[in-house]
Amino acid sequence: MPELLDSAIDDELRAFFAEAHVRAGPYGGHYAALWESIEQQSSGGKRVRPRLVWSAYRGFGGDDRGLATRVALAFELLHTAFLIHDDLIDRDLVRRGAPNVAGRFAARALEHGADERASAVWGETAAVLAGDLALSRAHRELAMLPVERACREALLDILDRAVFISAAGELSDVVSSLRGTTPAIESVLATLEQKTAVYSFEAPLAAGAVLAGAGEESVAALCRFGRLVGVAFQITDDVLGVFGDPVVTGKSSSADLREGKRTALIAHAATTPSWALISDRLGDPALDEAEAEAIREELVRCGALDAAVALADEHVTLARHELDAADLPGGLRAELGDFAQRAVERVR
Amino acid sequence: MPELLDSAIDDELRAFFAEAHVRAGPYGGHYAALWESIEQQSSGGKRVRPRLVWSAYRGFGGDDRGLATRVALAFELLHTAFLIHDDLIDRDLVRRGAPNVAGRFAARALEHGADERASAVWGETAAVLAGDLALSRAHRELAMLPVERACREALLDILDRAVFISAAGELSDVVSSLRGTTPAIESVLATLEQKTAVYSFEAPLAAGAVLAGAGEESVAALCRFGRLVGVAFQITDDVLGVFGDPVVTGKSSSADLREGKRTALIAHAATTPSWALISDRLGDPALDEAEAEAIREELVRCGALDAAVALADEHVTLARHELDAADLPGGLRAELGDFAQRAVERVR
Repeated sequence: MPELLDSAIDDELRAFFAEAHVRAGPYGGHYAALWESIEQQSSGGKRVRPRLVWSAYRGFGGDDRGLATRVALAFELLHTAFLIHDDLIDRDLVRRGAPNVAGRFAARALEHGADERASAVWGETAAVLAGDLALSRAHRELAMLPVERACREALLDILDRAVFISAAGELSDVVSSLRGTTPAIESVLATLEQKTAVYSFEAPLAAGAVLAGAGEESVAALCRFGRLVGVAFQITDDVLGVFGDPVVTGKSSSADLREGKRTALIAHAATTPSWALISDRLGDPALDEAEAEAIREELVRCGALDAAVALADEHVTLARHELDAADLPGGLRAELGDFAQRAVERVR
Repeated sequence: MPELLDSAIDDELRAFFAEAHVRAGPYGGHYAALWESIEQQSSGGKRVRPRLVWSAYRGFGGDDRGLATRVALAFELLHTAFLIHDDLIDRDLVRRGAPNVAGRFAARALEHGADERASAVWGETAAVLAGDLALSRAHRELAMLPVERACREALLDILDRAVFISAAGELSDVVSSLRGTTPAIESVLATLEQKTAVYSFEAPLAAGAVLAGAGEESVAALCRFGRLVGVAFQITDDVLGVFGDPVVTGKSSSADLREGKRTALIAHAATTPSWALISDRLGDPALDEAEAEAIREELVRCGALDAAVALADEHVTLARHELDAADLPGGLRAELGDFAQRAVERVR
């Protein structure tokens, strides 16, 4: 079933980008290339958000695949927009091992004879605009949805909340990364929830449920479940970022350490005697593989790895409690329970 | 009458930001400061777009001030979003003589002990997010408008077109600024139309008219009028940017020359024998006042100033022809005719 949805989303995205490409034609090759770069950025993902929209929608008895696909598309494009603007903020030129929007346009500038400064400006410009276009389309997709006004406005409220809270989370992620400060676990978890869990888990689940006409209490339970499972997912992702197989995760297992990323893992380490050793080397862009390995060993020794895994498990347990306590259709409860379990099992 | 609208817009903006401020509270002081910086960025403008929405709406007999104010607000916030992201692309930290969003957050970072690099990242992050939030609100304002579906979707189409074409214009502005290339007048005019005239003039006029229930042909005529008058406005702004009184324009009359901004003025100069002299010094960040004055004199001597003024006049004449040829209410025709005239009279 999810595979069917994936292909529906892919078809919808393809149709949208084909139309945008035609529409961009009169504005020149660079603009067409910008749209191609948005399309490239929106492909290759795991379609977590569309699947959650679809699970909740179908779980509450929804059967209009076309409608669900459009709502799913809105959240997938919101995700695309956030990825693009997040990379811009992080000054990254690569995502999932390939040049991202900014990387592609920086290279394009060089091909057109630009110097290094102009190349950087082309890249940033493309990233700003690509994110704005994807974000605008996410809004439009819901605003034009052919459903009753109350339903559409409830979906728009979900989107509004997702945008509002993600921005808060992104800002807090950046401001809390000041070197020399010690990350606290509470603030790491709050940032994960705001920056990722709300827009990626809570909002798609709530949107699918609302679209199917679910009651307020059920939607609220799905929201709580989504936030908890989203945090569990993100803690697990961060653990895999340091301890995972680069072939599976698609990125160097030393990148997060070089960047000094503030994760649950690191926040726990900061409460242990190992912190002096770890913090001394963490966030050094010149960190080599042997030094990264030394930090990894220290993270295991001080108990940070176990603590992070346990924290993720705890969030999944709480998430499953939400499912059990709520008045949800049985099939949906089972499906989401499995989904929560898989969130943390990747690490074992 | 415009003054009444201005205060309605100011009231609406104030109410919106007061609500956002309360809502941002739980997410900490930095997020509240981000909202303050969006509010600051949205104040002090000339409210050109709200006035155009209102003129067209009232001109076609619209009398629901609350509704018109919300549509006007959408276009004002779209403008705020574009200003913020435009400054980000241009790496500007100042607008209208005061620190902009990025400038405020870069300073805030330094107060919090950040180094120069972190300060730049805070500034960029704030600008990315502030623009996203303002853009999202522009979409939401129209999406939630309590009008018939056909009317709301027509308004959303106008917004969609404005976003799509402005992005094309912004991109073409950046890519055409490669040093060493010669600006062509056709491409300068196309960029002005795409980057500014469509979202600032065409779209607000069309939106006001559609909201009042105007017919398709009248709306199309207003769109053509808006694009022409928007280009005339922008040519005039660019002339004032080089020859205007800095006290009136609010910026140094050498800034555009130092930046090497591609304007109609410069594109005309590029077709004259003076170009070698001008292009030699244009776009040099170290240009001093005496050198800027020498460029200004050369721009007068080679006829570029007269040509740009004539080009703006020509666009106003064409714009007024559109008004005369269309079936528009008499009061609206007169009001927009005066508006077009004032667009170019500022330069005399």
